[in-house]
Order: sequence, then C-alpha cells, then structure tokens
Amino acid sequence: MNTIEKRISDWRTFRSDQHIEALRKSTDRIDLTWSDGRVSPFHFEWLRDNCSCCVCVNEMTREQVFEIVDVDVHVTPTNAAVDEHGELCVEWQDGHMSHFEPGWLRAHAYDTESRIECADEAHVAETWGADYQDTLETFDCATLMEDDAALLIWLRALRTRGVTLITGVPVERNTVCALAERISFVRESNFGVVFNVESKLDANSNAYTSLNLPPHTDLPTRELQPGLQFLHCLVNDAQGGDSIFVDGFAIAHALRGQWPDEFHTLTTLPLEFRNKDKVTDYRWKAPLIHLGVNGEVLEVRMANFLRGPFDAPADKMPALYRAYRRFIALARDPSFRIVKRLRAGDMWVFDNRRVLHSRTAFDPSSGKRHLQGCYVDRDELMSRIRVLERATCEV
Amino acid sequence: MNTIEKRISDWRTFRSDQHIEALRKSTDRIDLTWSDGRVSPFHFEWLRDNCSCCVCVNEMTREQVFEIVDVDVHVTPTNAAVDEHGELCVEWQDGHMSHFEPGWLRAHAYDTESRIECADEAHVAETWGADYQDTLETFDCATLMEDDAALLIWLRALRTRGVTLITGVPVERNTVCALAERISFVRESNFGVVFNVESKLDANSNAYTSLNLPPHTDLPTRELQPGLQFLHCLVNDAQGGDSIFVDGFAIAHALRGQWPDEFHTLTTLPLEFRNKDKVTDYRWKAPLIHLGVNGEVLEVRMANFLRGPFDAPADKMPALYRAYRRFIALARDPSFRIVKRLRAGDMWVFDNRRVLHSRTAFDPSSGKRHLQGCYVDRDELMSRIRVLERATCEV
Repeated sequence: MNTIEKRISDWRTFRSDQHIEALRKSTDRIDLTWSDGRVSPFHFEWLRDNCSCCVCVNEMTREQVFEIVDVDVHVTPTNAAVDEHGELCVEWQDGHMSHFEPGWLRAHAYDTESRIECADEAHVAETWGADYQDTLETFDCATLMEDDAALLIWLRALRTRGVTLITGVPVERNTVCALAERISFVRESNFGVVFNVESKLDANSNAYTSLNLPPHTDLPTRELQPGLQFLHCLVNDAQGGDSIFVDGFAIAHALRGQWPDEFHTLTTLPLEFRNKDKVTDYRWKAPLIHLGVNGEVLEVRMANFLRGPFDAPADKMPALYRAYRRFIALARDPSFRIVKRLRAGDMWVFDNRRVLHSRTAFDPSSGKRHLQGCYVDRDELMSRIRVLERATCEV
Repeated sequence: MNTIEKRISDWRTFRSDQHIEALRKSTDRIDLTWSDGRVSPFHFEWLRDNCSCCVCVNEMTREQVFEIVDVDVHVTPTNAAVDEHGELCVEWQDGHMSHFEPGWLRAHAYDTESRIECADEAHVAETWGADYQDTLETFDCATLMEDDAALLIWLRALRTRGVTLITGVPVERNTVCALAERISFVRESNFGVVFNVESKLDANSNAYTSLNLPPHTDLPTRELQPGLQFLHCLVNDAQGGDSIFVDGFAIAHALRGQWPDEFHTLTTLPLEFRNKDKVTDYRWKAPLIHLGVNGEVLEVRMANFLRGPFDAPADKMPALYRAYRRFIALARDPSFRIVKRLRAGDMWVFDNRRVLHSRTAFDPSSGKRHLQGCYVDRDELMSRIRVLERATCEV
C-alpha cells in the first residue's frame, strides 16, 4: 500500500505517539485500546463510512463518492485486525477492504477523553485589558509579506489575542488589501471592497463623520459580521480621533462572573441592528453575546449607533436596559481599554467579532484624517492557518 | 414640525389604520390604548432611547448619536400627551422633547399581540414537493433586468419558494453576474467570483468532475453558507447531467412530523464539513438542520461528499447514523424531487441554504456541459426587497 492511497481523504499527515495495543469486536463496534490505555470505540457504520480507499473517495478531489445509505444498516466486518504497519484493517461482508492509519484514528476518535482533548485545543482565545497596551503584539509589514513562518506567527496571534498592530505599511492608497490577501480574498460589503474612513459630506454612516464613535463591531447588521478588520492609516493630522480597542470577550467573561443576570440577558435576548441608507436596508437580530454549544463566548455584536428599537417581551424590557447599560459601562471602563494614536503607515488588524473599536471625535478643520479598511472572514483566517500548519507538520 | 424631522431615524414611512385612543402613565412606562383596543406598553427608557430628534440622531446618516447610558436609569417624563396630529409627545425632566408618530409606534410596539403579528409576517417560506415541477415559477431575464416591479415579484418568489427558473439568459460567459448584480454585489469564495461547473482534469471538488453529485448545499464548509446560488447553463450537450432540486425545508418538516427523534438528532448534533485542497482547508461544524429561537427551520446544511467523520458522543453514534440515513432517504424520494434538464440560456436561482441541488452523472465524451455560477447572500436579498418595498409603500 502506497502513502497516497493511505491518506487519500485528507491533505494532512496524522502522527501519533500511540499505537493500537488491542482490538475487541462487539455487536456494533470495535473498541481499540491504545498504548496509553485509552479505549476508543469505532462503530462499524462509522468505519465503513470513513473508508478512504480510491473506490470510496475520489483520488483527485479527495472527496467521498461512497454514501453510507448504500450499504446495509447492519454492515459488519468479517475480519478486523491490526497489520504489521500498525494499521487497522477491516474486511466487510461484501469483500470490501478498509485500512485505517493509527494516527488518523487517534485524531478522529470520539471517546469522551479524545473529544475533551479536541475541544480544549480549539479554545485558544486569551483575553486582555488595559495593560495589554504595553505588550501589544506588533509585526513588520515587509516581513509578513515575504515570510510564511512570520505570517503563521502573526495569524496565530490574531486568533489568540484578537488584535495586532502592523507597522511599516507603505503610505499609499489601496495597499490595505495587499496584506489582507496574504490570508485570502477580501470580503466585499455595500461600503465597497475597500472602505474609506474619513469625514464625508454625504456620509451614510456615523463612521464617515467626525463624530465620536462608541465601541462597536462593524456590520452587526449582517447575519455574519466580518471576521477580520484591517484599518490602514494614511494620514492622521486632525486633532482628536484617537483609536480605542476593547476585548469584548473580556467584558463577556466579567459579566458572566460578576453580573450573571445581565450575562444571561445579553446571551439570550436578540437585539436588532440596522444599516439604513437610500439604496440599502440591512437588518439583523441576534443576542449581543453569542455562545457556543458548550457555553464558550464565540462572538460579540454591538454598535449603539446601528441599533434598532429594542424588541423584547414587555416584562423583560427593564432587565434588557439594565444589561445593555452594564455592557456599555464596562466598554467605557479604562481598565478594559487600550488607547493608541494611529500614525501614517500603521495598520490595525483585529477580530471584528470579538474586539470592539472606537474613536474619539476629531476636528476635521484642524487637519486630515484618512483610514482605509477592508474585511476578511474567520473562515479564511482558519483555512490559511491550517494550510500553513500542514507545512510545519510534514516530514 | 416638518416631515423629515419626524422620521429622521428611518427611510421608511410608517402607516397605521389605528390611532392612539388613550394614554396611561405608570411608574416606569406609558401604556397606549389603540383605536382597535390593543394596549401597548412603552417603557420610559425605551421612549427616551428612541427619540428621533436631530440632536439624538444624526440628520445625514440617520444613525443614533445619543447613548442611553448618558441619562439616568430613572429617566421620567414630566409631561406626556397626544398632540393634534395624533403624535405622542413626551417632555423629559431635563427639558428634552421627543415626538413619536403613531404609525412608527404601532410598528415597533412590543406587547405580546404586536410581537406575534411581526413574527407571523416574517415566516413566509412555502414548502413544495415533486408536484411543484409543473408550477415552478419562471421569469424572463430581460424583464428582470429592466423592470423593478418585476424584480420585486421575482425576489419575493425566491424568498417564499426558494427556487426559480430564469429563461432567455444570453448564452455568453460571465453573464451570470449581471442578474445577480440586480440584487447586489456577488459573494466571492475560494472557487472565484464566478465558478465554472464542468469536468476538469485538475478538479478540486467533485462538482468539477462528471460524477453523480448527491443532493447538497454549496459550501457547507463555511460558517455562513452562501444564501443564493445562480447557475447559468451555457451548454448541456452531454448525456446525463440532469438537474434535481429538493426543498430541504419540506424534508425538515416531514422529519419533524414523522421521525421526531431523527429530527431532534439532526437539529442538535453538529456535523463537520470540509473543503480540502492544496492551498485551502475549510471546515465548519453545525447541525444539518438549523432552527431559530421559535423552532422555525432556518437552514439546511448538507453535502455527503464534503462531510468529515462524525464526531459525537459514542452512545449517540447509532442514532446519528439512523437520522442521517433517514435524511438521505427522503432526499432521494421522488415525491420530494423536481427533475429538470437545463438548456443553454436557462438559469436556476435558488436559496442554497434551503434547497438541495443534485445532478446525475454525465458522460463528458458524449458532448459538452458547462455551467457558470455565483453567489449572493441572504442579507443582500433582504436588503434589496426592503428597498424595493419602500417605493411601493411611499405616498
């Protein structure tokens, strides 16, 4: 059996320090005992479903051709054994053969312990407060443009901390996308592929005025808020207009610990956000804090200036205002804030679904202020990290 | 008071057949009694929060400048009355004045009856089965390109039925976007802005082979599956390659009614979907059927050929396979399917998060088959419908 055939269903390599020590077949599954003592059950149906031979999986696309409904619900091995390479080999009633690498099996095992291990690996967010200002992770633009290893370090920092500062970015219009495209294509919106943050006479958002902008995420008015936001400073000579960042996950954790009722309200009652314009009318309704199935904080959605009237059962309205006030009070609390003044050639890159950004009012008559921005989604960030990590995991 | 000032917080016009009959102030709210007897409470905080005067809302952007945290939690009117235009006028302790149109108040009322009314209006999906084949809504491309009224009828059909056929589309490459752009900008993916469905030698998806493609949604591997899919037929001379559509919402409703355990499994256990390629590695995990807070079916996510190994607690694995098999069995059931052969110049437009599409295997040596596709998200569809509806609601 050649290497390609063995891992036809994936482009990754799966390694494991553990080998299969023992195999026990029962009525509907095989229980594997690993060298560290862990026991992982694999149901017959699951094994048949995940056969990665070149009949079940297309060799070119590495996508499944086989469908589990095309074999009997009681599909059963006539033979199952660990071969001399340590692989699990299963022969089915119809003569079909399936081979499974121990590293692949270990990575996809669904015993309780293995599932907890995987879930733990997925939670990498590290929250921060005002003191992060002094240790803020800063990267050099030219290095990121050239060096894939540096790129991976940056993207992991972005995933973990949610905010990074890039310096040395050329002070030229439309260069904001160049760095974004080191990750992937850019996500367009009704504000364009690249949006211009400056005081405009025909502003269709408070962002395009000189007004104070309270801490917010961009486009909470869309079902999927943009994942990453890039803000590139071309000129910042006006008085005022300082940049403020707040870790929305840190606020969520503070709420959960100290104001559990408010936390409950903000994770359950949906709020509506609206981008109204002459030619567009975007609206979306979701809780301010979005939790995953295990209660982990996945997203914050907030922009007071884009909020529609609260719509909640009348008896919950006072609690909703109490919770909403508390969230804003925390977002205004200096202990959660980092405050920086952007200089020409600086670029903020941050997780727009986690980190709230804000700017103080500025005086457009005192000087020019012009930022350019664009978005890339979390899917693209994660895909890029996985592909860059493949290289580091290869032999 | 001029008209602009009155509705500064919105671009829409709010009409109501009802007027305010009576007003009762209690400790934290005003109860309005309407001419049809409905009673709607409006809390003081809610009213102050939604003041739409040009101090609280920016005149240009129609976005809020005021933040509720900047007034006392016990904000109370010193005066509240209905004026000679039927408007609710509130004077606050600090002298600030707020005016509310009765049509706007009625549209945003949050008494139980009003909230049920709104929720009912939001659920417009009408499911279908095989007999829809004969009454499938079909539109003429040239008319949609020119006529906004026809455009609105089409978009509403798309929202209600989830699938439409457009005929008379010019048989020219890259025209698929022209119709999509009648709605909005196109959503890009790693497969491009426009993707080409044809048998390719270097296929990175089964879609780009001549294989049978079982009923699926596109890009279930992304957190947000594309909302609308456009598939434009340029040539279809090969043997095989018929198009099949299945209403995923109809299957979900059948499951809920007849196989409640399977329905429960598919709405709660997340499945992972994967787009693996040499340069990208997309993964997303979500239940096959996604429900809204009120139990309504919002989305179906399914592609057997993009599915990762099931990851669920071991004791739930048999039930998961049972439910998954049931879903596929229904998607294969002719009573749920419409089968059409695309002709050059036809374009399918369908809700990719609701309608599963499928094609039979074809023989690339027997003739050419080439479709071009693109995506637009549901947000853009809904925004376009709202703006087109504004025109029909204006005086």
